[in-house]
Amino acid sequence: MTKVECLSCHQKFPLDPFFPFCPRCQNPVFLLPSTLSPKTSSSNSQDDSLLNQSQSSSIDNLSLGESNTPLLRLSQLEKLLGLSSLWAKNEGQSPTGTFKDRGSIFVVRFAPELGFQRIGTVSVGNMAASTAAYGQRAGLETYILVRGDVQEKKLDFIQTYNPHLIQVEGDYGELFEQSYELGRRHNIYFANSVDPFRLQGYQTIAKEILNQLAPKFPEVIVAPVSSGGHLLGIIKAFLDLNTLNTLSCFPVFIGVQSDRCAPLAEAYSRGEENLQRMYNLPPVPYAISNPNPPAGNLLLKLIYQYNGYLIAVNDQEIQEGQKLLAQKEGIYVLPSAAATLAGFIRCQQQDPSLAQKTTCLIFTGTGFRGQRLFPAEKNKLHHTSLDHLDGLLAKMIDKKKPEN
Amino acid sequence: MTKVECLSCHQKFPLDPFFPFCPRCQNPVFLLPSTLSPKTSSSNSQDDSLLNQSQSSSIDNLSLGESNTPLLRLSQLEKLLGLSSLWAKNEGQSPTGTFKDRGSIFVVRFAPELGFQRIGTVSVGNMAASTAAYGQRAGLETYILVRGDVQEKKLDFIQTYNPHLIQVEGDYGELFEQSYELGRRHNIYFANSVDPFRLQGYQTIAKEILNQLAPKFPEVIVAPVSSGGHLLGIIKAFLDLNTLNTLSCFPVFIGVQSDRCAPLAEAYSRGEENLQRMYNLPPVPYAISNPNPPAGNLLLKLIYQYNGYLIAVNDQEIQEGQKLLAQKEGIYVLPSAAATLAGFIRCQQQDPSLAQKTTCLIFTGTGFRGQRLFPAEKNKLHHTSLDHLDGLLAKMIDKKKPEN
Repeated sequence: MTKVECLSCHQKFPLDPFFPFCPRCQNPVFLLPSTLSPKTSSSNSQDDSLLNQSQSSSIDNLSLGESNTPLLRLSQLEKLLGLSSLWAKNEGQSPTGTFKDRGSIFVVRFAPELGFQRIGTVSVGNMAASTAAYGQRAGLETYILVRGDVQEKKLDFIQTYNPHLIQVEGDYGELFEQSYELGRRHNIYFANSVDPFRLQGYQTIAKEILNQLAPKFPEVIVAPVSSGGHLLGIIKAFLDLNTLNTLSCFPVFIGVQSDRCAPLAEAYSRGEENLQRMYNLPPVPYAISNPNPPAGNLLLKLIYQYNGYLIAVNDQEIQEGQKLLAQKEGIYVLPSAAATLAGFIRCQQQDPSLAQKTTCLIFTGTGFRGQRLFPAEKNKLHHTSLDHLDGLLAKMIDKKKPEN
Repeated sequence: MTKVECLSCHQKFPLDPFFPFCPRCQNPVFLLPSTLSPKTSSSNSQDDSLLNQSQSSSIDNLSLGESNTPLLRLSQLEKLLGLSSLWAKNEGQSPTGTFKDRGSIFVVRFAPELGFQRIGTVSVGNMAASTAAYGQRAGLETYILVRGDVQEKKLDFIQTYNPHLIQVEGDYGELFEQSYELGRRHNIYFANSVDPFRLQGYQTIAKEILNQLAPKFPEVIVAPVSSGGHLLGIIKAFLDLNTLNTLSCFPVFIGVQSDRCAPLAEAYSRGEENLQRMYNLPPVPYAISNPNPPAGNLLLKLIYQYNGYLIAVNDQEIQEGQKLLAQKEGIYVLPSAAATLAGFIRCQQQDPSLAQKTTCLIFTGTGFRGQRLFPAEKNKLHHTSLDHLDGLLAKMIDKKKPEN
């Protein structure tokens, strides 16, 4: 029997796949490693067996090569911004281009053990595509529920993997809640944004960062926040490692939102314990846009407890972040991933001591199939004939010489 | 001084960065590891120090996390196609989405050692973007020469990284040749498709496949062929490992082309030693489309020598390959990467013994920013209101039950 634990009230109880929340405080719940079947939990030590499954996934027939994404030093941005030690964990190199794949592999690996041949998710884009890809690879029937107004381009990408795809008109928050009841009725495992198996997958990033950055320690970790599940998973992993006394210190966590939809950053700036659900927002053009993040209140609690930050950045900052990363470091990221850099720049202006810390930005997804927010530089595009190429190059190179 | 060797006539001579071909037989040349400076050649043993640099790249400030792409078992396709052991090396998870990154990291690492602060390339797409990304990361001035008729979408992607981008009207083959002379005049290192540093980068895949597949051995290796540099690099790496007696046997290599532009497959089918340059072809919509592959004649020689195959596949086969990979295995690849699967299916129909071999398909790039060649399945897209979702799910699931 799979058991879960509430990180807020510490109650332990059996997992209800059709209501994966704490019955007492409604927060997302985490799997207790000791309760997973021996078949899937290959490690003997219970302490971090689930964390270690990021390694075993590479020899798993269901794996698409998620995890073990690169950690990159951002040397040019360090110089430009006057920072000591800036690193990026690039989840854009995941199989479907986003960190969601870390969660989806856990879902397809464990759903059949829970008795499901049908999986599903409620999503507006990246999680839908990731769930569809892993669902097909595992040979499971996959039901993807998206909002009625989802962009044609996103729909088309999800359809590449050929899941059952349903556009649902109506309130998205209600769809999220109803999906669990529908799952119970039709025996579909709806693994949504804060599903405990997904959260388990998100935890695998912690050990990777520690190993890749060693002997340095990630004193600051920055990630974008939408449903809150991703950052929550990462914090949980560090809490576990701290309990095991494997950490020399504890990172400062910074969660970044878009100011178009920032229920957590707003609650944090007012010092409130609970977020206020937002209503009737105009559509937000980024992947970070959850007006009622299900992991929100737990995240607020942890951020206060461990002296983190929750901040919002505006469109221009996100745009500038995406441009800096592509043009200075050769890394093309999703707008919501670019918000990470923007958020850190903003945050260290408020707290200048952060500029001296070893910082790891988490780039949640690739820009390849998203929006580029900045226009191309016109003066760098030229058109010529083969005959005139020599002259053009001479002119371009000569222009760049310092005048004296 | 950097020395190179011709794989055809075995002459050794100093590298001329402005004519990286054998002066005697005009074939592409390979670096002699022993002649690289100690600064960059960290390994003491000369035998495979360059191969080992795929490892060191992860701690290199210029790296974007190229190499160490996943090797995936294609279990569902094995069953569907009646194959024994089918694997995919997925280069789509490279930093800019294609295998070109393996070459670009070597170019930006070594160009400054050769005395260049300006690099460049002649390309129609993927190599341009890869070179631009690495050029910006390394802080080098980067000149990208593309054909006048290159697609707007491709131009836009290259511009994300903000290189100097020049569209050149005129014959593309002539542009390729002239780029070396222009490089000499303006001190730009034009690292084109068969540049010896690029070829060095492509060799790193060999050890990765051997390590990831062990204890199995890749008896058959299949890759798409355009300029021929990629497959040539891979074969060269296996030849080196064979010389070092680290191989138990030698793989069969299969190169795949699109039948819209297949100078190598055609020469091979006629048993000819040299390819015939193709002229005035209508535009080919895939990345495999070089009408005069500079590595072609050397590749032909090696394919004959080691009993490989060069074959061409048609649009429908490529389309079907892309669809099978996305829908059965959750892997979305470039059309030219899908040609790999199509080519292997075709080849093992001609030689049924191949179906029993351990086969590694090389998927050269991601489908994320390319074309999807197959339409979405209409019967899998549904639209409903929240009120009617329950009924729709019931109907969909009921339909799938076997009638009896």
